[in-house]
Amino acid sequence: MPVVSPKVLAFDVFGTVVDWHGSIADEVDRLGLNVHAAEFARSWRAGYKPAMARVMSGELGWTRIDDLHRMTLNDSLEEFGITLDQAKADELNLVWHRLRAWPDAAQGLGRLRQQYTICTLSNGNLSLLADMAKAAGLPWDLILSAEVFKAYKPHPDTYLGVAGVFDVKPEQVMLVAAHHDDLLAASQCGLQTAYIERPAEFGRDALKDVSEQEFTDYHATDFLHLADQLS
Amino acid sequence: MPVVSPKVLAFDVFGTVVDWHGSIADEVDRLGLNVHAAEFARSWRAGYKPAMARVMSGELGWTRIDDLHRMTLNDSLEEFGITLDQAKADELNLVWHRLRAWPDAAQGLGRLRQQYTICTLSNGNLSLLADMAKAAGLPWDLILSAEVFKAYKPHPDTYLGVAGVFDVKPEQVMLVAAHHDDLLAASQCGLQTAYIERPAEFGRDALKDVSEQEFTDYHATDFLHLADQLS
Repeated sequence: MPVVSPKVLAFDVFGTVVDWHGSIADEVDRLGLNVHAAEFARSWRAGYKPAMARVMSGELGWTRIDDLHRMTLNDSLEEFGITLDQAKADELNLVWHRLRAWPDAAQGLGRLRQQYTICTLSNGNLSLLADMAKAAGLPWDLILSAEVFKAYKPHPDTYLGVAGVFDVKPEQVMLVAAHHDDLLAASQCGLQTAYIERPAEFGRDALKDVSEQEFTDYHATDFLHLADQLS
Repeated sequence: MPVVSPKVLAFDVFGTVVDWHGSIADEVDRLGLNVHAAEFARSWRAGYKPAMARVMSGELGWTRIDDLHRMTLNDSLEEFGITLDQAKADELNLVWHRLRAWPDAAQGLGRLRQQYTICTLSNGNLSLLADMAKAAGLPWDLILSAEVFKAYKPHPDTYLGVAGVFDVKPEQVMLVAAHHDDLLAASQCGLQTAYIERPAEFGRDALKDVSEQEFTDYHATDFLHLADQLS
């Protein structure tokens, strides 16, 4: 384990703090769209990385996740043969602002906040993260987003940007995430890392491998377990 | 009064939410610096606008308020003939992260937050505002700063930037501030405006004129009075 004590814990959000899959599948069911809701949620989410790659390659100018989600929603609606009027699709698109937190999230963040500065480091845009925090009671000290740094993770400007905002060294920031690629990129920038197991991130019918990787500094089942390890 | 209901209330911070003068004067007294603390606080603050002007003119590259405060602190120390070692001056500089809120602030923001999205729009940097919010219990939905827009108020990019972040029209944002110049610039960008009386902003020995100006949409003695008017 690292020698330096972190000052700032920066959290990935989609999948790490909130259950995007379950929230979207429930919303799709609620709307009565006649599709396999779990598959639809995965399809929509699958458009996310390619859409950000179009921004980072310069093919698209800076585009917020709200707008990227709206584009990829159209792709998924087409893929599943669903016709939805524009107003309903716009409303469905905002489900990302209302994603529900994992059961341990608010309490675990509350504990960690007593000891550290806690912030988001998400590719989600600022208003999305602010709406989500308000609805789910997430007690962030600061909401940081790719929108602040005008770069999407895993670009180094995002990880190093957190250290810059708080005027600390990279090793005084710990990225907390449920994704090994995010943590690997952060560790390559000198940040500390904590992996959170979220086996049902893609749905309970599509459990993912959450086994420990050598390069992460901490490995926890949830935020309460991380708080136990850091206290 | 305006016809459109605002969605977002954006708050100026120094003087509007927190009592910079009283907090700094108390800190100067606590440190036992042998100076007129109220005058020293005003001198330090007086360096603020000229320092930002040097950034906005391009004479200085983007520089955070923490760093501008550190430069202007040196000027004030010299002006008052005070010698302070670097570590103590660095520590004193962080008093801006610990400014105490006006007595009505946390409660008033709590009431307004039930009805609106509330955010900061301050020239203070993000970490300063996050530390202050944590220490003073200010329940912001989002902390926005000149640091996000890379422009200091009264540049239009800051006021219009808030509308952009929340994807609303300028008239759906209301700037809340204790400074007429800030509110005038915001109104010229199409924002709604609310003036808050903070007569002792510069000290109880230097009360300022808080009389109503024609161009402001609301005029309130404090945040509780504003909440009464908006509810």
